[in-house]
Amino acid sequence: MYTALYNHINRFIDLSIDEQEILAPMLKSFTVKKKTFLLTEGQTCRANYFVAKGCLRLYFIDIKGAEQTTQFAIENWWITDLTSFLFQKPSEFYVQAAELTDVIAIEHHHYDELFNKLPKLERYFRLILQKNHQASQMRIRYLYSQTAEERYRHFNNLFPDFVQRVPQYMLASYLGFTPEFLSKIRAKR
Amino acid sequence: MYTALYNHINRFIDLSIDEQEILAPMLKSFTVKKKTFLLTEGQTCRANYFVAKGCLRLYFIDIKGAEQTTQFAIENWWITDLTSFLFQKPSEFYVQAAELTDVIAIEHHHYDELFNKLPKLERYFRLILQKNHQASQMRIRYLYSQTAEERYRHFNNLFPDFVQRVPQYMLASYLGFTPEFLSKIRAKR
Repeated sequence: MYTALYNHINRFIDLSIDEQEILAPMLKSFTVKKKTFLLTEGQTCRANYFVAKGCLRLYFIDIKGAEQTTQFAIENWWITDLTSFLFQKPSEFYVQAAELTDVIAIEHHHYDELFNKLPKLERYFRLILQKNHQASQMRIRYLYSQTAEERYRHFNNLFPDFVQRVPQYMLASYLGFTPEFLSKIRAKR
Repeated sequence: MYTALYNHINRFIDLSIDEQEILAPMLKSFTVKKKTFLLTEGQTCRANYFVAKGCLRLYFIDIKGAEQTTQFAIENWWITDLTSFLFQKPSEFYVQAAELTDVIAIEHHHYDELFNKLPKLERYFRLILQKNHQASQMRIRYLYSQTAEERYRHFNNLFPDFVQRVPQYMLASYLGFTPEFLSKIRAKR
């Protein structure tokens, strides 16, 4: 049931079968249909979500009323509104399934317990958060220093399958331009 | 020499005197004058920097040739270009002292060693990176969903001393507007 997560953890640390059994009761797995919300603005974020299959996205509604996607999580990525999750306060974000998605969740009331019972997961999450923080530093860098078209080409070179897979309007907001502009770039090719 | 860092670590985990002695040979401390660069674009980032006193900032030159400050680190914060630091490749950022700053550095060749010799630091850095990632999620949220003036007032409420302390043009780029606009808001008060 949690094989995708165990496999991912084992890329970074060694988690024995015994340790997997300690971890399992602190996890939950479920499948959500495309467009299902795991979090909406004003709700308190209950869990940190690992994508076993499919795609989740984190977005918010900007000052003009438009959706701004700030993060995608495909297979083997974690996603949550950290502020709402850590401090258990109302969120200013949405987490939504961009596709039919198999999720493995760690709920907030298990989060500290997890590190107490399995301290070696500190290393796993340190490496995951390091990757997240590194990716968000680079994303800001590219948002400001490439033209919209360069950004699209760069992203398309890095993640060609993903670009095909995700709805255009979500990709456009993630890359910082309008869906109309994205259609134009694509038509040009 | 490293007391500021030991104190900070001890807010999150217990680091004994013996463990401090294991850590010390992997650290370096030095003072940099205002405007000194610890990293410039094209260089490989050699260290992760902890601010014991003073202020460092991370910025890049955007497509219009303007400085974009993406992060400040005052007392007790870490700062680095993670991509360049982790993969030891040329940086697309600058790290510069915004004030006279006392720095404690962990150089790249000690970074893995540190976690091997002191696995309990995994927890410390997991919590630090979690805080960093949480702050950067919120920063993006506010950049898109408040007017420039709201953003300034919000930031000024949260960090009144910091707003007084840092040069206006750096603060303006961090908050996503021009120095001229910042002067106007301040004049209005």
